[in-house]
Amino acid sequence: MELRARIYPIRADMPIVVMNEEDAKDMGVYVSGRVVVEYRGKEVVAIADTTKIFVKEGEIGLFEDIRDLLGVRDGSKINVIGAKRPSSVEFIKKKLNGHSLSNDEIRAIIKDIVDNNLSNIELSAFVVGGYVNGYTMDEIVALTSAMVETGQQIDFGNNIVDKHCIGGVAGNRTTMIIVPIIAAAGLTIPKTSSRAITSPAGTADTMEVLAPVEFDVDELKRIVSKANACIVWGGAVNLAPADDKIIRVEYPLSLDAEGHMLASVIAKKKSVGSDYLIIDIPIGKGAKIDDTKRANSLANKFIELGKRLGISVECLITDGSCPIGSGIGPALEARDVLLALENKGPVDLINKSLDLAGALLELAGRVVRGKGRGVAEHILNSGRAKKKMREIIEAQGGDPEIGVDDIDIGNREETITSEHKGRVRHIDNGIISRIARAAGAPRSKGSGIYMHVSVGDCVNVGDPLFTIYSSTNSRLEDAVRLSQELSPIRVGSIIRTL
Amino acid sequence: MELRARIYPIRADMPIVVMNEEDAKDMGVYVSGRVVVEYRGKEVVAIADTTKIFVKEGEIGLFEDIRDLLGVRDGSKINVIGAKRPSSVEFIKKKLNGHSLSNDEIRAIIKDIVDNNLSNIELSAFVVGGYVNGYTMDEIVALTSAMVETGQQIDFGNNIVDKHCIGGVAGNRTTMIIVPIIAAAGLTIPKTSSRAITSPAGTADTMEVLAPVEFDVDELKRIVSKANACIVWGGAVNLAPADDKIIRVEYPLSLDAEGHMLASVIAKKKSVGSDYLIIDIPIGKGAKIDDTKRANSLANKFIELGKRLGISVECLITDGSCPIGSGIGPALEARDVLLALENKGPVDLINKSLDLAGALLELAGRVVRGKGRGVAEHILNSGRAKKKMREIIEAQGGDPEIGVDDIDIGNREETITSEHKGRVRHIDNGIISRIARAAGAPRSKGSGIYMHVSVGDCVNVGDPLFTIYSSTNSRLEDAVRLSQELSPIRVGSIIRTL
Repeated sequence: MELRARIYPIRADMPIVVMNEEDAKDMGVYVSGRVVVEYRGKEVVAIADTTKIFVKEGEIGLFEDIRDLLGVRDGSKINVIGAKRPSSVEFIKKKLNGHSLSNDEIRAIIKDIVDNNLSNIELSAFVVGGYVNGYTMDEIVALTSAMVETGQQIDFGNNIVDKHCIGGVAGNRTTMIIVPIIAAAGLTIPKTSSRAITSPAGTADTMEVLAPVEFDVDELKRIVSKANACIVWGGAVNLAPADDKIIRVEYPLSLDAEGHMLASVIAKKKSVGSDYLIIDIPIGKGAKIDDTKRANSLANKFIELGKRLGISVECLITDGSCPIGSGIGPALEARDVLLALENKGPVDLINKSLDLAGALLELAGRVVRGKGRGVAEHILNSGRAKKKMREIIEAQGGDPEIGVDDIDIGNREETITSEHKGRVRHIDNGIISRIARAAGAPRSKGSGIYMHVSVGDCVNVGDPLFTIYSSTNSRLEDAVRLSQELSPIRVGSIIRTL
Repeated sequence: MELRARIYPIRADMPIVVMNEEDAKDMGVYVSGRVVVEYRGKEVVAIADTTKIFVKEGEIGLFEDIRDLLGVRDGSKINVIGAKRPSSVEFIKKKLNGHSLSNDEIRAIIKDIVDNNLSNIELSAFVVGGYVNGYTMDEIVALTSAMVETGQQIDFGNNIVDKHCIGGVAGNRTTMIIVPIIAAAGLTIPKTSSRAITSPAGTADTMEVLAPVEFDVDELKRIVSKANACIVWGGAVNLAPADDKIIRVEYPLSLDAEGHMLASVIAKKKSVGSDYLIIDIPIGKGAKIDDTKRANSLANKFIELGKRLGISVECLITDGSCPIGSGIGPALEARDVLLALENKGPVDLINKSLDLAGALLELAGRVVRGKGRGVAEHILNSGRAKKKMREIIEAQGGDPEIGVDDIDIGNREETITSEHKGRVRHIDNGIISRIARAAGAPRSKGSGIYMHVSVGDCVNVGDPLFTIYSSTNSRLEDAVRLSQELSPIRVGSIIRTL
């Protein structure tokens, strides 16, 4: 069908055209959702959005990206024909019908996701199908492999160690303590981390307070060959890019499909060639996982999936019922980290980091079972971890001499005090995170919360519970208001009121 | 957050804004997918699409519809805050988790669908959730009621009769024969029909060859009070508008969720106040339903759903393995109808129409059980149905004297002949429909196919099987090529080759 191009001065992340619904029905496009748009020998396949009103019959709305690809102008007559659905849509349908998918079918879907060949409708159906019908371990292996294959893979050599935390706990910046300990022990740990999506700080956001975190593959290799380690943002090197696109659909629905989560974690580790991997699974009220049974089941799946992909995985189930560390927010957490590396930081943060580092040393065969924690402690106490961290900071282009006082904290603050006398019973991770975000974290690096108490501490009326820092008065007011509404800290003896 | 408006000269069917992904994450919008956009006291809730690149941080892309609502200009600073997900998204999630939904939950979802409050991601999740997890009868009743309530309802009085066919059979234009028979018998039958989406002709497309079919509610009431009947396009009066929006998501995935189908059919009937309803369920190879068991189950659900909504439903399971009638395409089918009303048209079309009309007369209590077919036959043979059809055509503003020869057929034609001698074993509905569409139907009303044979006929080599009509040579060539590729008619004795 010949249609008259109407160019819209927009660029889209994927090739989209807008057609009148009647033209779309006539061409069968209403059904496939896709067209081949052809102009003077050049062609492109696009998702066809339909409208009853805003594009007239006989016209087709094109965005600038397609205009440039085809060299078409506003008003040009272009040839549009219905395109077949990619076969991945049939495979998505197969999943909806309760069948398992083969390697090749899963690879086709993941490839089309990465290539932006699927519409939001189709992508949502894929995510929902996996969520409702679940995946077999064979399917998860295929998902993981396909995610690895469709992204960047980096060879950092042999005996690569790594760690991962499934998240959901405020503070909890153990990575930045574990990595220097492990690297100081002579192991290679090229750690790629994420930025916050819903939390007040990701490890990448926190590390960025101390040094740049965005590098290309060559730079990354140079850093790791220099320092035996790095702490960088994984998003800059395109590891398992399917993951981001799946998350983009999961978030609006609050879906957290286990199969996708397993695949996404292991794919990112496989992409950097990890051989040994410790996974931290925090459990407890307010954490992502609240019961031991689910944590055990998840751990076993991580171990099995790792085995299938040639990674030795060990999972540590940890207490995720309250924040770890005192600072919440990039700069406040970075301060905690620098203090911890001098063995002066929050006890629970150091304690947890040493357990995880010890387990990793044991897993990688660097020390015998039962001795890991001791060795890790020794490396920290001796100052070797601190020294290693300064090497990493320097290799990434930061100032190796950076000290706690060099880190700027938001210059507006307000301290929330206890209204009760008693023992701190519970600190809610989710609420603490929301308050820290309201204060401006993670974008405003100096904003966030500093906790003055931990669970189990005794407090009197008027004792400081936590201080909110922000860079603007209005953000500070928002955060204070939120903390008054939601009361993240409970003092008393009652576990639950029914 | 204050963002600078960038206006795009586009209108969308729903309120959409485009934000940079970093701003969206910062505001928590990445997660909810929604914002409140506020400017000088006016505000609107919009779905937020995110982009990494094409909208810069600090900017927000607005389409013209929102620009006009807010009176904002390109470059204006507008206030944008994250909006809560509508509660219907939680209910969709509940369905994904395998739970049944209450009346109120379903009503909230359907209302948000009709009001364009759901993004494609959410709408797809809803449709897929219903498809994978199915609906209880209570849920289907709630879906149906909600679809009725959110659309136009028309009161045509008491004892309203109606018919519906679940479709999938080429030709099969029984409605246009049944309606005049029923109306001639003194019953009121305000028939609303659909236009073709994937088929070569809907009843509304075919009726449009004889008379206009798009009317508002008042016009419709006047037509029905005049002729006791109408044959019009339902799309013009906004009956159960949720249905269209659900179909828009089902088609790209080829989903045909039974629950939605049941609700959609009955909702449209309830919206016009039908009391008695005959549903035609064609089964057989190539039809929508291929086995008796599924047809029986579907029929029982239609009957139960009808009962719950106060409609007496009877289902007739009919032979849908091959086309009914000779013409395929609006004009060719309209010719069949006019001939049939003179008792000269295709035998199978007349035969089926009389059976359905007879069943409807019995269901509505107009004649005793067993006598319906005879009465219907008498009405047709006596010329009263033809006279009634002319009244209907006149009431809808058509020429009541229209004859077969007044109907234009595409002036390019090619006849496909048999390559074999033997008996016609099978005629494939789906392929016949595709060929007729390739020839230009339904948009080009005179294009389509005329069948010269039926299943069971004996043919010799060179005998005409069917003639393709088109209004352009290129469309004719496309259709001929397709019929050569796909061979819609099988001559011989073999049922299946394995």
